[in-house]
Amino acid sequence: MAVTSIDVARRAGVSQATVSRALRDQRGTSEATRRHVRKVARELGYVPLQSGRSLSTSRSRRIGIVVGELTNPFYAALVASIVHELDARGYLGVLLHDSDICEPDSAPIFDGSFDGVLLTTTSDSRLADEIERRGIPYCLINREISGRRPVSANVPDNVLGAELVAELLIELGHTEIGVIAGPATTSTGSERLRGFRDALARHGIALHPDAVGETAFTIDGGCASARAVLTARPALTALFCANDVLAIGALEAATQLARQVPDQLTVVGFDDIPLARLRAFDLTTVAVDLTALARRATAHLLDRVEDPQIEPQRVVHEVRLVRRGTHAAPPR
Amino acid sequence: MAVTSIDVARRAGVSQATVSRALRDQRGTSEATRRHVRKVARELGYVPLQSGRSLSTSRSRRIGIVVGELTNPFYAALVASIVHELDARGYLGVLLHDSDICEPDSAPIFDGSFDGVLLTTTSDSRLADEIERRGIPYCLINREISGRRPVSANVPDNVLGAELVAELLIELGHTEIGVIAGPATTSTGSERLRGFRDALARHGIALHPDAVGETAFTIDGGCASARAVLTARPALTALFCANDVLAIGALEAATQLARQVPDQLTVVGFDDIPLARLRAFDLTTVAVDLTALARRATAHLLDRVEDPQIEPQRVVHEVRLVRRGTHAAPPR
Repeated sequence: MAVTSIDVARRAGVSQATVSRALRDQRGTSEATRRHVRKVARELGYVPLQSGRSLSTSRSRRIGIVVGELTNPFYAALVASIVHELDARGYLGVLLHDSDICEPDSAPIFDGSFDGVLLTTTSDSRLADEIERRGIPYCLINREISGRRPVSANVPDNVLGAELVAELLIELGHTEIGVIAGPATTSTGSERLRGFRDALARHGIALHPDAVGETAFTIDGGCASARAVLTARPALTALFCANDVLAIGALEAATQLARQVPDQLTVVGFDDIPLARLRAFDLTTVAVDLTALARRATAHLLDRVEDPQIEPQRVVHEVRLVRRGTHAAPPR
Repeated sequence: MAVTSIDVARRAGVSQATVSRALRDQRGTSEATRRHVRKVARELGYVPLQSGRSLSTSRSRRIGIVVGELTNPFYAALVASIVHELDARGYLGVLLHDSDICEPDSAPIFDGSFDGVLLTTTSDSRLADEIERRGIPYCLINREISGRRPVSANVPDNVLGAELVAELLIELGHTEIGVIAGPATTSTGSERLRGFRDALARHGIALHPDAVGETAFTIDGGCASARAVLTARPALTALFCANDVLAIGALEAATQLARQVPDQLTVVGFDDIPLARLRAFDLTTVAVDLTALARRATAHLLDRVEDPQIEPQRVVHEVRLVRRGTHAAPPR
């Protein structure tokens, strides 16, 4: 039979209300009592029930998920994973569109209806600043905001991923290399470009300024940028794209320009969204385990919601190169 | 203690009503006053309470958007359009995942925090029943629920679209035709299949039971179902897929089975999602103007929120055939 708070109270020699307060770190119990009750609860294996908790605390059991680019399949899949994880712990995920938070200080996440916030696409630090100032637990997922003191974040190893791509291209013999980068204001955009540039530089290869495009993370942006770069630098034999959506745009550009992939042009992406593995694209890319990102970030956020003593935690997730059909040696 | 609008009014030297109007960007306050009040509110850390807001206007200016299939680019794009339309009229769109509404009578949309609800993927009538019983304005978008008295809905003309596809296939000379249908529980799934079947029947062509697959609206579902149908009926020369996501799955199946599209197999979709026009797919499909669906449905819902006298309205939107590269005459 499940252990109840009554069992804990009996064993600890205190009232049931004291058990409840002690386990919730609420006022009205001494530190010694709290420690004693927690020890007994642990010994008995008692777990406070979720629904019981929300009845007696002022929690809404709602988590705000701030998203901006739902039409990027990466974020759609990420959100689906987050919602699933929240659900498993009895929380409701409510999505707020980035565009609705133009004025950080009056954002709906501050009206008391959310216990915590997950930020998935934010590059603007003002919202995070405001969240922090108000003491609302939050966690950044996939993107983070530079130049800040330790905050909770779960991000892929962008630099490592970019290095893996650089090494692949060098190993294949490419020297005329271009990049379709994402916005420099995003950590994914800037870190993937920097990691790639640095890795090439270590092998004595420089990126020509005309060989680097910067664009929004959209298929259309990737296509237009790849067209521009390939037109300005026709000798390019390989393009590293800062995400798969850009890479799909670059493949479209290659088709439009009648450049055969991979024989005449190598294209590599980043993220490994489900579309990447379709035969129509068969995209060589860097895999980010978005289920792991979602699971770890959600678990950490909820731990902090339930126990504010828990310290912020930054987790950098491993990535790996997925070799499919869009890379080859340069034409001779 | 929490900062109230009275504190803001006092510090700003204006009335409480002015604070309220200024923070809501309502008429009756100058731009200078609004800026001043906002600055003071920010300094004091004041956030208009959700409940306070709804007390004075009895509206939250929040609309719940129920979605289930965010990983279907059609819904991601639809939601982006809806959020944009809501924003233009000063409402906040809050997304609730279908899976969070297992128990219709305790769904979060009934806690008083939403002025109205847009339902995009619901096939379960219980939620709509409950919304109706409580007198909350709502509008169905894209999918509707059968066997109900007049409700607000904005849907594509599924039957017409399916007929256009049937006529195209017949005109090309196909007689061995298959269908990858969506779930029969969805109006898009059932109406597109029925419209197609009826149109073929009028030309004396019957669908063999083994030539009809039914699956969830996913790429993987479409691929598996198309493989099964093409394996069971190798003589098939054309597949009508109930949406573009299924059609992309069918194209994947064709590649896996080494069936050349369109020379050996015609594949036609429905929706015209942005992916459909990529050269990698170049999908012949039926275009649904999702911006029009979103705009009309949102405008109608907000009209009803603001004036409950307005009658429910069902709008069926025109669709049109988009001839791209995945259709051809059957091989001889």
